[in-house]
Amino acid sequence: LLPSWRLDQGAIAATYRFADFATALAAANRVGALAEAENHHPDLTLGWGRLTVRFATHDVGGLSINDFRAAAKVARLLAAPGA
Amino acid sequence: LLPSWRLDQGAIAATYRFADFATALAAANRVGALAEAENHHPDLTLGWGRLTVRFATHDVGGLSINDFRAAAKVARLLAAPGA
Repeated sequence: LLPSWRLDQGAIAATYRFADFATALAAANRVGALAEAENHHPDLTLGWGRLTVRFATHDVGGLSINDFRAAAKVARLLAAPGA
Repeated sequence: LLPSWRLDQGAIAATYRFADFATALAAANRVGALAEAENHHPDLTLGWGRLTVRFATHDVGGLSINDFRAAAKVARLLAAPGA
């Protein structure tokens, strides 16, 4: 259901591809707005044409249900038109 | 002169601290706008209250003068009011 997501060093992470730097940065801003709305913030790694989104719950030293909820919302967001 | 910059795995990198996620994301956008203007793009790693900016020149498999020029401009940008 979320094929691009993977476990990565205690976090769940997905890498999305884009046409260029600016488009990847625009996606980072969309993810950032979602993170503010959810009050659950990922780590983002951004480069030319790619954005990696990584969720973990530092308070519990691993993953929580909030990480999976947030990942699912990011997956929907970045699959949507305009992503 | 650029005390926060370091060599990191063949790149030059600096980590800046911010009050929260949104402020770090705003700084990433400022760096992104500079990168577009310079046509030289860093890798950015963004988390709650921190932004790491990393320049390397993939074409030459290491560092070029453009990386140092761009790093200096980012250093000025993020030292300026509004950063």
